[in-house]
Amino acid sequence: MIVDKLIEKIIETQNPTCVGLDTSPDYLPEELLAGVKDLRTAAQAVLTFNKNIIDRVCDVVPAVKVQIAYYEQLGYHGIKAFGETCRYAKGKGLIVIADAKRNDIGPTASCYANAYLGKTQIAGKEKKALPCDFLTVNWYLGSDCAKPFVEQCRTRDKGVFALVKTSNPSSGELQDLKLEDGRTVYEVMADMVASFRGRKGKYGYSRVGAVVGATYPEQAAALRKRLQGVFFLIPGYGAQGGNAEMLRGCFDRNGLGGIVNNSRGILLAYRKRGGSYDTAAREAVLEMKADLLSVLGEIHA
Amino acid sequence: MIVDKLIEKIIETQNPTCVGLDTSPDYLPEELLAGVKDLRTAAQAVLTFNKNIIDRVCDVVPAVKVQIAYYEQLGYHGIKAFGETCRYAKGKGLIVIADAKRNDIGPTASCYANAYLGKTQIAGKEKKALPCDFLTVNWYLGSDCAKPFVEQCRTRDKGVFALVKTSNPSSGELQDLKLEDGRTVYEVMADMVASFRGRKGKYGYSRVGAVVGATYPEQAAALRKRLQGVFFLIPGYGAQGGNAEMLRGCFDRNGLGGIVNNSRGILLAYRKRGGSYDTAAREAVLEMKADLLSVLGEIHA
Repeated sequence: MIVDKLIEKIIETQNPTCVGLDTSPDYLPEELLAGVKDLRTAAQAVLTFNKNIIDRVCDVVPAVKVQIAYYEQLGYHGIKAFGETCRYAKGKGLIVIADAKRNDIGPTASCYANAYLGKTQIAGKEKKALPCDFLTVNWYLGSDCAKPFVEQCRTRDKGVFALVKTSNPSSGELQDLKLEDGRTVYEVMADMVASFRGRKGKYGYSRVGAVVGATYPEQAAALRKRLQGVFFLIPGYGAQGGNAEMLRGCFDRNGLGGIVNNSRGILLAYRKRGGSYDTAAREAVLEMKADLLSVLGEIHA
Repeated sequence: MIVDKLIEKIIETQNPTCVGLDTSPDYLPEELLAGVKDLRTAAQAVLTFNKNIIDRVCDVVPAVKVQIAYYEQLGYHGIKAFGETCRYAKGKGLIVIADAKRNDIGPTASCYANAYLGKTQIAGKEKKALPCDFLTVNWYLGSDCAKPFVEQCRTRDKGVFALVKTSNPSSGELQDLKLEDGRTVYEVMADMVASFRGRKGKYGYSRVGAVVGATYPEQAAALRKRLQGVFFLIPGYGAQGGNAEMLRGCFDRNGLGGIVNNSRGILLAYRKRGGSYDTAAREAVLEMKADLLSVLGEIHA
């Protein structure tokens, strides 16, 4: 099961760090920007940057998260670079999380599920649009938005992370509101995730995971208890203000149960540290690993 | 203002119908499927279908809504066809609504806003990724998800439709839940939309609109009262079960205030009516116009 593969990669690397490839053209160093003059050449430079980062981190991290918004702003050239980034990362043995927060009514959600997790039927044959292992999803529309994604997880052995409690400053405006029944809105979303958990893999986690921000440690710890068997994708470490101590409650006593994303702290490490961007990214990843392990201890099954 | 242009097109055509270009390759007639064998050729056939539909309806409807999920499942070839569909529709004088339900934390939401509503900075110059007039958005993440979209609406004269009460069967699972303060979750979203309304155009409507499903007429009528000055994008007519009588409450007494989407009922009209797909689409659009006007009467400013 894909979640088992993710867990095995985390144990093998002793590193629950996910490299966030939120690659804005602004982040590229001068040497890659020479010749960039339009969306097409910008997308090519972004892809080169991503490949070099992947080459330098693929032996020390389990996964990358590719944030598609940064690619969509480059039009279809960007989507081409997004797909090639995903394919390249998979070729290097990494687990690929597409961060797209997709959502729509049932038939339309099926198209999104085809695009990222499944395949598209063309003239009686199955074609792969975008090769990913996991997809982030937003289930504000209810269970008929969720089902097509969950169905693809089951039949294609893929995974999702559904938004529960997000890391951003205003996440509480809606998510923290209390219902008449005493639950918060994000707890309703958590319970929807739990209802779709399905079969657990050999380490006790399911293919249906949750996005839980590092920046709200109390809520995250409570969600860890509420969502047994649900793996967490944890944004908010680094630039957004989350630190290792705040993350403790997201993990089980084996140090499993979550993967922590860092984007700008890794992609832009070269501007702080000097040297080449790929070497700086590797150093940043290893520093983050040490920081996380100082709290989690040895990670084991 | 873009919302004024939309309203003027509705008055001019006497038709608050939006043609939903949710063009699945499955929907294409045999003659367009000859030669389709992969994602690229499927995307080309979809584009041909769209252009022919647009040619036949552009004088009798104000707008098209292009559902990007159907294009994403064709990978970057699909996004190219999506962009070309939008450009072609704009060239024919139609208002273009990108139905993408995008959402993310602030900096990432800015990328989505660049992609659909604004421009992307490349080497000091502004480049257009995907040419749209309106974008659908999901504001589950709170106001820092909303702001970048609203900012682009203001500076680029574009519009958004934020999900409030969606048309699908399970929309109530989260959206209808009651909070301690007596509001439902969808009313909280409605109030967030109202807080971002900003300046109104000459017909009293703002660039920040709401998605309100045709399938829940009581809630829609109550939202019409709660959201003065907020234009509605109304899905759910036709295949999803909404009819003209159910829509009455979405409109003001001039017959303004909303635009009603129909996708499958128009794109697949040829399978029911026979004849060519583009002629059948035109007939379906005119039939829908007559149906809506039977309830709304003459539409005027």
